[in-house]
Amino acid sequence: MLNPKEFTERDKFGLYNGMEVISVEKGRAKTRMEIKAHHKNGIGTVHGGAIFTLADLAFAAASNSADDIVTSISATMAFTKAATEGVLFAEAWEVSRSTKLVTYEARVTNASNEIIAAFQGLGYIKRKV
Amino acid sequence: MLNPKEFTERDKFGLYNGMEVISVEKGRAKTRMEIKAHHKNGIGTVHGGAIFTLADLAFAAASNSADDIVTSISATMAFTKAATEGVLFAEAWEVSRSTKLVTYEARVTNASNEIIAAFQGLGYIKRKV
Amino acid sequence: MLNPKEFTERDKFGLYNGMEVISVEKGRAKTRMEIKAHHKNGIGTVHGGAIFTLADLAFAAASNSADDIVTSISATMAFTKAATEGVLFAEAWEVSRSTKLVTYEARVTNASNEIIAAFQGLGYIKRKV
Amino acid sequence: MLNPKEFTERDKFGLYNGMEVISVEKGRAKTRMEIKAHHKNGIGTVHGGAIFTLADLAFAAASNSADDIVTSISATMAFTKAATEGVLFAEAWEVSRSTKLVTYEARVTNASNEIIAAFQGLGYIKRKV
Repeated sequence: MLNPKEFTERDKFGLYNGMEVISVEKGRAKTRMEIKAHHKNGIGTVHGGAIFTLADLAFAAASNSADDIVTSISATMAFTKAATEGVLFAEAWEVSRSTKLVTYEARVTNASNEIIAAFQGLGYIKRKV
Repeated sequence: MLNPKEFTERDKFGLYNGMEVISVEKGRAKTRMEIKAHHKNGIGTVHGGAIFTLADLAFAAASNSADDIVTSISATMAFTKAATEGVLFAEAWEVSRSTKLVTYEARVTNASNEIIAAFQGLGYIKRKV
Repeated sequence: MLNPKEFTERDKFGLYNGMEVISVEKGRAKTRMEIKAHHKNGIGTVHGGAIFTLADLAFAAASNSADDIVTSISATMAFTKAATEGVLFAEAWEVSRSTKLVTYEARVTNASNEIIAAFQGLGYIKRKV
Repeated sequence: MLNPKEFTERDKFGLYNGMEVISVEKGRAKTRMEIKAHHKNGIGTVHGGAIFTLADLAFAAASNSADDIVTSISATMAFTKAATEGVLFAEAWEVSRSTKLVTYEARVTNASNEIIAAFQGLGYIKRKV
């Protein structure tokens, strides 16, 4: 399994947008993003795409391991609260894993631990080698 | 309603990531993104978050008008095909609109018109003034 | 591929709830249900579970063929309009098919062709020997 | 708030399909269903529509209270494991509540506490009186 720094650097879209993997273990990972002007949408709150990406990055870091490549096949997000400043975190954890499929959930929260979004993602497992 | 150029410039997250609103009318909009290295994930394909954002931006441009602000409250995306190079487009259209809620769908396609992702989004309508 | 009558009779949950497959071809199918008192929820409208099932049945009929068994792995539904009486229809169609996965969409409509719900489903393909 | 027996009896679709609300408190509820032949799909496992309904019923019981009517506006379900016999349970809990919207999650489990499905639902709040 890659360490958080390696995950952060390999994920170019997350990196370009100031997102960081801050912890990763088998089936669980956490990401972080400091809100900047370039994360905002047309009405001045953090873009749904940025919030989604932060959760999806946690999902990717948590679901990929030394032996498997897991590619996201679908994801759902409920946006529960607008965010405008400070830091956002996402944490993803495994709900189920079969031979070919994984299900994950994630939460995006702010520094006050308020829930900003709730995520559910499905991944397809490709065995390496 | 804003014109495509105004939408593009107001949406800072889309703008920062090289996304552009290329057409907008009431209930329908189209966006475009040229795939660059900074759009990729850790396995070298376009990041789910970038694909999601491109569709979400089309949803936002299509659903917001002169009189309403529509904020995304949930969204689902099925990732049907990996993308690695060239141009991606997203087109969003309105499925339903009630007093308080809208439902939209969107498709992300590549230059060969292959479907890269299918999106469904719900928005909450806040009346301006 | 089974004909509509065979599909209807094999799907015990649909059958028990008065749902019928009325047409089926490769990648597309249609179902029908006459609203009865036993389809309602606690506030007197058709239960989300009944609407979901009608769409899911169309998805199953459309995605299963002579050579494959497709099992639903995830589904999303936007409920756009309440229904209380008359007939409901669902139509499902294929959005994508890869070696292992299919994506479908479906619409539930009433007799006036108003959209009651919009559905997106993913299925996993098990090859029949 | 209605008691579990009242919820069970008011929800005609759940009742007709042998589903029962077994506990309910503000923001949390549990349902139960004994698997019968009429819950099955065409391949002999419990129908996705039945599993969805069991979770949706828990969501409805948990989200409706003395003062509000909450109607489901969208829902997503990941089907993680097939079920064929015994008893299924669903438990739903509130993730967020704003003035107009609620987000819920639910799990469907079997008697061995294995996860059969993971559910996310959004509801729109209509104030009574």
